[in-house]
Amino acid sequence: MTNETSKTLSNKRDTLDRLLASARENFALKGLDGARIEDIAREAGVTKQLVYHYYGSKASLFSTVLEDVSTQIMEELIELDTDNLEPDEALRKLLYCCFDQYMNDPLLGTLALEGIRYHESQDSRPNNFIHRSPALANKFSSVLERGISNGIFRPDIDARLFLATSSLLMSGAFTNHYSMSALVGFDTRSDEGMRIWREHSANFILASISQN
Amino acid sequence: MTNETSKTLSNKRDTLDRLLASARENFALKGLDGARIEDIAREAGVTKQLVYHYYGSKASLFSTVLEDVSTQIMEELIELDTDNLEPDEALRKLLYCCFDQYMNDPLLGTLALEGIRYHESQDSRPNNFIHRSPALANKFSSVLERGISNGIFRPDIDARLFLATSSLLMSGAFTNHYSMSALVGFDTRSDEGMRIWREHSANFILASISQN
Repeated sequence: MTNETSKTLSNKRDTLDRLLASARENFALKGLDGARIEDIAREAGVTKQLVYHYYGSKASLFSTVLEDVSTQIMEELIELDTDNLEPDEALRKLLYCCFDQYMNDPLLGTLALEGIRYHESQDSRPNNFIHRSPALANKFSSVLERGISNGIFRPDIDARLFLATSSLLMSGAFTNHYSMSALVGFDTRSDEGMRIWREHSANFILASISQN
Repeated sequence: MTNETSKTLSNKRDTLDRLLASARENFALKGLDGARIEDIAREAGVTKQLVYHYYGSKASLFSTVLEDVSTQIMEELIELDTDNLEPDEALRKLLYCCFDQYMNDPLLGTLALEGIRYHESQDSRPNNFIHRSPALANKFSSVLERGISNGIFRPDIDARLFLATSSLLMSGAFTNHYSMSALVGFDTRSDEGMRIWREHSANFILASISQN
């Protein structure tokens, strides 16, 4: 590859990164219906035509944003180093990591909610969230199996049901923020609210599978 | 009240019931943005003008639908007869009731999802879901306290956190259907999927608070 070609590729990568960042923010703040390609393009410093050239349609750009987001959160969990921890501490690390992904990125909760709604409304193509779910379940499964062998976890845990339950609880303060806040009586996205929910949900999950 | 007046009132009630049923279905199937007042009116057999006369705007009609739905699900839970059951059976009855509300009404999951999204996007006025949350927490609390006195539940349960957690898990197969199905590896709204999730989530919750 010549220096010239490599520079062109790197420029293209930068442009796409800016475009996806702008799309991510617009979709999270305004939803798929409310977001406008014109605004996304302007904030990324590119033309509307270029967005259509690369992505074809607003829905397809939205799919790409969702794919990026889910790849990022799945891989971070799958690659988390838990081998040298006791099973209960390894599990707590995984649960906190899941919570912290939402806590550290205020756009993620609304984006996930918008994604669920998008997928409900149509048959969606296979994507990375579906492809990587078994690998993530394996990650949880290996921690659970260590705990079962040690006698600290109950023997009859189904890893995939456990993963779904854990994910729902650790993300619920963000994806179901309105209902959760009404039911607990405080804002689950305030600093204090997040601290309480993070601790409570991890404890709740661990208590459910612990022997004694 | 004359017979004539009573008949007029009863006709008006019928018209509003039809209108709300039509609105409920349209909002659940097409979302707040996608639903059209024209279709809602036509399916209810009334004019568009009458809808605006009673509700003022699409958003206000949507609020009324949400208010009706949440009143219905909250009151059914609050009024559930649990006094003559052992605390663990009483709790299981409450949890199953919550799940069955969604199972028996295929529109409820998407409507709840649309409601969460609607409330995220704006400061919403106080409503029945917020007003009745403490009463529902009291309902759960009295069952929990009986179980704590009996020594079958752990002594340190926070009733409102417990209520929110339970509600999230029992409704998640419907409100977060797409993500949950991807993570568990089956369709959580199929007959078999619902049976598994209903049992699993109630067991998971009871295991978390049970002593031994």
